[in-house]
Amino acid sequence: MPARLNLDSSLIDTLWVLWAAALVFVMQAGFLCLEAGTTRTKNAINVAMKNVADFAIAVSVFWLVGFAIMFGDSYHGFVGTSLLGWQIDASGSWVITIFIFQSMFCATAATIVSGAVAERMPFLAYTWTALWIAFIIYPVFGHWAWGGLLGGKEGWLGSLGFVDFAGSTVVHSVGGWVALAAVLSIGPRAGRFSFGKPPTAFPSGNLPLAMLGALFMILGWFGFNGGSTLAVTSQIPIILANTVLGAVGGILSGMLMGFRTRRYADVMYAINGAIAGLVAVTASTHVISLQAAFGLGAVSGVLMVLTSEWLLKKHIDDAVSAIPAHLVSGIWGTLALPWVADLTLLDSGLSRSAQFGIQLLGVVVCGVWSFGSAWLLFRITRRFLPLRVSPEAEKWALI
Amino acid sequence: MPARLNLDSSLIDTLWVLWAAALVFVMQAGFLCLEAGTTRTKNAINVAMKNVADFAIAVSVFWLVGFAIMFGDSYHGFVGTSLLGWQIDASGSWVITIFIFQSMFCATAATIVSGAVAERMPFLAYTWTALWIAFIIYPVFGHWAWGGLLGGKEGWLGSLGFVDFAGSTVVHSVGGWVALAAVLSIGPRAGRFSFGKPPTAFPSGNLPLAMLGALFMILGWFGFNGGSTLAVTSQIPIILANTVLGAVGGILSGMLMGFRTRRYADVMYAINGAIAGLVAVTASTHVISLQAAFGLGAVSGVLMVLTSEWLLKKHIDDAVSAIPAHLVSGIWGTLALPWVADLTLLDSGLSRSAQFGIQLLGVVVCGVWSFGSAWLLFRITRRFLPLRVSPEAEKWALI
Amino acid sequence: MPARLNLDSSLIDTLWVLWAAALVFVMQAGFLCLEAGTTRTKNAINVAMKNVADFAIAVSVFWLVGFAIMFGDSYHGFVGTSLLGWQIDASGSWVITIFIFQSMFCATAATIVSGAVAERMPFLAYTWTALWIAFIIYPVFGHWAWGGLLGGKEGWLGSLGFVDFAGSTVVHSVGGWVALAAVLSIGPRAGRFSFGKPPTAFPSGNLPLAMLGALFMILGWFGFNGGSTLAVTSQIPIILANTVLGAVGGILSGMLMGFRTRRYADVMYAINGAIAGLVAVTASTHVISLQAAFGLGAVSGVLMVLTSEWLLKKHIDDAVSAIPAHLVSGIWGTLALPWVADLTLLDSGLSRSAQFGIQLLGVVVCGVWSFGSAWLLFRITRRFLPLRVSPEAEKWALI
Repeated sequence: MPARLNLDSSLIDTLWVLWAAALVFVMQAGFLCLEAGTTRTKNAINVAMKNVADFAIAVSVFWLVGFAIMFGDSYHGFVGTSLLGWQIDASGSWVITIFIFQSMFCATAATIVSGAVAERMPFLAYTWTALWIAFIIYPVFGHWAWGGLLGGKEGWLGSLGFVDFAGSTVVHSVGGWVALAAVLSIGPRAGRFSFGKPPTAFPSGNLPLAMLGALFMILGWFGFNGGSTLAVTSQIPIILANTVLGAVGGILSGMLMGFRTRRYADVMYAINGAIAGLVAVTASTHVISLQAAFGLGAVSGVLMVLTSEWLLKKHIDDAVSAIPAHLVSGIWGTLALPWVADLTLLDSGLSRSAQFGIQLLGVVVCGVWSFGSAWLLFRITRRFLPLRVSPEAEKWALI
Repeated sequence: MPARLNLDSSLIDTLWVLWAAALVFVMQAGFLCLEAGTTRTKNAINVAMKNVADFAIAVSVFWLVGFAIMFGDSYHGFVGTSLLGWQIDASGSWVITIFIFQSMFCATAATIVSGAVAERMPFLAYTWTALWIAFIIYPVFGHWAWGGLLGGKEGWLGSLGFVDFAGSTVVHSVGGWVALAAVLSIGPRAGRFSFGKPPTAFPSGNLPLAMLGALFMILGWFGFNGGSTLAVTSQIPIILANTVLGAVGGILSGMLMGFRTRRYADVMYAINGAIAGLVAVTASTHVISLQAAFGLGAVSGVLMVLTSEWLLKKHIDDAVSAIPAHLVSGIWGTLALPWVADLTLLDSGLSRSAQFGIQLLGVVVCGVWSFGSAWLLFRITRRFLPLRVSPEAEKWALI
Repeated sequence: MPARLNLDSSLIDTLWVLWAAALVFVMQAGFLCLEAGTTRTKNAINVAMKNVADFAIAVSVFWLVGFAIMFGDSYHGFVGTSLLGWQIDASGSWVITIFIFQSMFCATAATIVSGAVAERMPFLAYTWTALWIAFIIYPVFGHWAWGGLLGGKEGWLGSLGFVDFAGSTVVHSVGGWVALAAVLSIGPRAGRFSFGKPPTAFPSGNLPLAMLGALFMILGWFGFNGGSTLAVTSQIPIILANTVLGAVGGILSGMLMGFRTRRYADVMYAINGAIAGLVAVTASTHVISLQAAFGLGAVSGVLMVLTSEWLLKKHIDDAVSAIPAHLVSGIWGTLALPWVADLTLLDSGLSRSAQFGIQLLGVVVCGVWSFGSAWLLFRITRRFLPLRVSPEAEKWALI
């Protein structure tokens, strides 16, 4: 039997991160409920199936290769080169702990896409996409921002001072950019848009289930943000309080915007308001006040509604509004950070505007890399695998 | 970066309370499933929407003002006067920890009402009610019973020796009294009661979802009762065991009562039996034996069934039986405490009957305050906001 | 008030096990969703009701007697003789902690049966079965394998060196054997099999709910395996990583097997693949590598699919494939242990083949005891209680 650990700090840190990992896993349940509840009944099971399949694929691939690319010894700040699947075992319990926690993050990034492309992307093409997100797209950008976490050289973006505490950009924007590339590549669902007419509203199959999903997302975010300290510090309470207030700000502003345009409490705006608020505070939750967290969340809810409407106008069909809720909010939260952060806590030694420059660089690099590589992936993939089901299959939900 | 905390007791206490807060949040999912599953399908989404909206409103208002009224420096034991929203930040991580935990309690109290008034109270009137619960009704009584938790003078009821460990009265009875005032003010659902006929049973839309909600409630109660130690003590295991046995006792007695009257296993009685059992042990779970917990829960299940039937006879329409499960069980658990508690653990220095006198005082004061202020709220509100949807809206679920 | 504990190891162990117990409780939600979602809509509520009722009964009976039989002072390694319900209280917080954790395990074993017999076993007969599982069947075998955990003489099987870390055999095979005895005793659902025709596929009522159940199962297993250390050790991270990779291996192989035979992603194979993978790693998750965990899970997924098909061919009707997912995977995981374990970690002093002999003995003894006693139970029970609803009740779901 292994020797009993001393009750030192590192042990408590381990338990904390594992607790958080379990909560981040709850976000998989959140995505499943949210997406299966939001789409049409006929497609609910396809959506649910994709959620579970992408989890299995993302974790496997991240275990085998992705984790190494993201957190292995850095090759000049660009890519990790150790900690491949069969090397993790022997690297000690802290590395394994980080692997569990981060594999949940990777699965989150992959799952974001499934909602946007719901109801018309075939199962094979979708799981193929999830594989590449976990294999390359997520880990490479992750390395640039977070590499060096387990020691050794930092990723190049992180070493410049880019701050993204728990992944507004690293997780949510990456997922959102791939989702955007995907919906542009495969086009809207049949019957969604016709020129000269307002978009056809597709009935959500089970809104209470979607609402339950939103609650699971909030719960999961306790772990997503809370665990990202990777240590038990005195910041944890404010991090969690900011997370809750970000969600609450997003719910309220999303609801009010919905009320304003539609004269009733729109469920999807409340749900996506919660997510938008959560994503927005994720970058900076460790260095902002409760008031700032509420404000970031509230603004994020407004941006989410405006973007949703803009996407509709542009005939870009995002079945669950993943792009407004994850991509736009991720950009917002990352760029807002320098202006709301307590610089003494941030401790980067940069002025607000210099920090903003770095944040902007990170956001742009994320867009170029994630959207670009996903776009390339879809251009290549479509030569040998259909990215879209046939019209009959779409009609009869044989996805 | 903040200095690393020493691994002292207070740090572990913080983690424990935050863990518990995440679990109490699960009760929001529990209420959502329970209420959306119990009501008619056409209203499920309205109910779900109210659950999420009241969470956002309750947390915001509790953050801005309610927490200060409840836990701020006491003005003669009657009302708190510090720790307003913008003052919480600077008050240290323990205050923030308690804020997170207690904002979940406040949201619970508010949510209890949504089930009782389901299917006929308009969204605006309901959220308006939730606002006042979080702003005044819950925090004021909470201050009387629990004020002084963060130092300073105790609330007047607490200083007399009133014991309500995790809120049988403070949370559940308060919510239940407001629910009672609400259903008396707005009346039964259309078609529910006709003179000379038995009540019309409205079909629950999704009983498995309601059942899932009951399981979430039990899970959430691990945190509700477990976290209320506010510290890691040797009492935690018995507190959790008593919580589970209270639920189990309530489920069994609720089911048996249902079997007795209806010859089959009634789902709603099992569900509400679980809640009734949980509420009953909440006041005293830290000072009773496993046998007492099971017994309190079992009796509570019986009282819940009897009250449900009595409400039907009186044509009082509580859509999810929130009043029997929360109000009656809360009274029962609070009044039973002196007779089942281990007085040495209770440590109040009072005899059983003296303690009973105080408990009774607390129960009566809670009723007068919560029912009275809610009744007044509805009398005033109805002058400018309809408390009830139009008959057409009720029919077509345009709530 | 109780004295504040010193912050020693045992306190952290207690919190860890209680955290795990809460997660194992989540498996109740998992079973409810999985079974209510897999069966036909008309039966969903019966299934849900059984899930909650068996929880209440299993916990009550385990509290009163089962825990004593399983963990009380051993009578020659065969049966425990102390720690009856009213003795647990006074035995200290560690005993209470183990009681909570283990009562969740007992409830899991009982719940496994409900899925297999769904849609035709009457409520009374089913709850009667659950009572006997918690009273005798589970605790007796549990004593043989795990007795002595709280001090004193070990159970006879455990003392021989039988290793079943978190219950591949003790929990899942026991539940699976009782399920097998039950479905053989009560026969298939009406209309499921007709000679010379392929089995009638009964439509699952709500596959997204079933999928959500699978996610809850994975989440619950964090506690099931993680908590089974019963102490905070450096093994916890690898235990959790192995749990996740076992699930992932099972999902992938289950999906691929489904794809191979049916040319589309079969939902039930993915769900049961997850469970099969989880059950398989449960026996050995503390002593194997990540690669071995993935491999055990993947093979388990294949065995699950093959067994499901074999049961269909034999006209044995297991409504949710509980037997392939729990019984077969439990046998597989227990027997595979000696060949994949790191013997230095196992520390039993046995060679691989000697260990295999003991494991095989444990598996056979479990089968003889669990299947035998359940078979006897059903032979006796059918004399005074119908084991099967009438054809009319089965048709109209009046179970």
